[in-house]
Amino acid sequence: MAWLQTELRLPPRRRGFHLITSEVEAAIEGLEKLRVGILHVFIQHTSASLSINENADPDVPRDLEMAFNQIARENFPYVHTMEGPDDMPAHVKASMIGSSVTVPIKDGGLCLGTWQGIYLCEHRDRGGPRRLVLTLHGE
Amino acid sequence: MAWLQTELRLPPRRRGFHLITSEVEAAIEGLEKLRVGILHVFIQHTSASLSINENADPDVPRDLEMAFNQIARENFPYVHTMEGPDDMPAHVKASMIGSSVTVPIKDGGLCLGTWQGIYLCEHRDRGGPRRLVLTLHGE
Amino acid sequence: MAWLQTELRLPPRRRGFHLITSEVEAAIEGLEKLRVGILHVFIQHTSASLSINENADPDVPRDLEMAFNQIARENFPYVHTMEGPDDMPAHVKASMIGSSVTVPIKDGGLCLGTWQGIYLCEHRDRGGPRRLVLTLHGE
Repeated sequence: MAWLQTELRLPPRRRGFHLITSEVEAAIEGLEKLRVGILHVFIQHTSASLSINENADPDVPRDLEMAFNQIARENFPYVHTMEGPDDMPAHVKASMIGSSVTVPIKDGGLCLGTWQGIYLCEHRDRGGPRRLVLTLHGE
Repeated sequence: MAWLQTELRLPPRRRGFHLITSEVEAAIEGLEKLRVGILHVFIQHTSASLSINENADPDVPRDLEMAFNQIARENFPYVHTMEGPDDMPAHVKASMIGSSVTVPIKDGGLCLGTWQGIYLCEHRDRGGPRRLVLTLHGE
Repeated sequence: MAWLQTELRLPPRRRGFHLITSEVEAAIEGLEKLRVGILHVFIQHTSASLSINENADPDVPRDLEMAFNQIARENFPYVHTMEGPDDMPAHVKASMIGSSVTVPIKDGGLCLGTWQGIYLCEHRDRGGPRRLVLTLHGE
């Protein structure tokens, strides 16, 4: 039985949806020793989020970015605007998409479906580096 | 202390929100022995999702389907359209609703509220069978 | 290694987004003894939800409420309307935002980012008291 917790610092990325599955896998040591467990991935920010979605066609993250921009529009009578027009929609998307993903562990690896990848959803125009907390628990 | 992991294969369902609480409960052996714990339910697909919502009035899942269709419209200038007009909205809904639900375990059962049920949200017109990974951990 | 589970009853709050981080922290005994772990916060209702978002500017929760009201409108041809025009949009928001949040535990405290807080998102006009189940697990 083991608990493992580590911080993963992601470099700045442009606004949009970015696959980070391999960065997450590289950051967690001891994964291959677990027969069963859960990986919890948490982002310590409120203007970016984490999601699991299609990992193959690069048009999918582009379309996701476009769709969420249309759902949580910048052109809206927000009061909290001092950090720019992209800030408040970023908070809306963060609550909509969520600050964590959890993935089952099976036989030493992430038990994702064939077409699933973990995404960093960067909702700010200039979000800067992002800090994740990875917590792995299993046996 | 126990970890239990099992796969649950759901038969194809039409597009919409479908209660699967009893199928999930039937699939997890040993639940009744746990005093406290967490059940993690994960879907290995990116065009369907999992949610917890009202389990009583069949109009609720119908209205949920209608509302999410209006929020993530098919009539939108998506680039990724080769899998049909229902595909990209399905990915948007998957990121919005999420690929997993977690439920506390208490005294040998799911600790859901009276009106809560677990939903498979099938976002494709012909989604086919869906594969879930159930991971139960507790003592 | 420890499991701790407790119920937290929140008093009625008006419709909107309400910070509950300190109420959650006050309700979990033994947190300070854990080096590493996960806190699972679950709401046993389907017309309110839980989220993590910006904890500083009170305009943010006001804007979140306004934005989600615009995304899940009351003015929509819902069938399930017997509980009032605010009920079905509340269910839509519950599926969109989610019924639980999970927070990593590190060195005896919640491992939240500087600007992160836990929100009760009350989607009903008169939602009444709300029941949360807190499940803490770690070592």
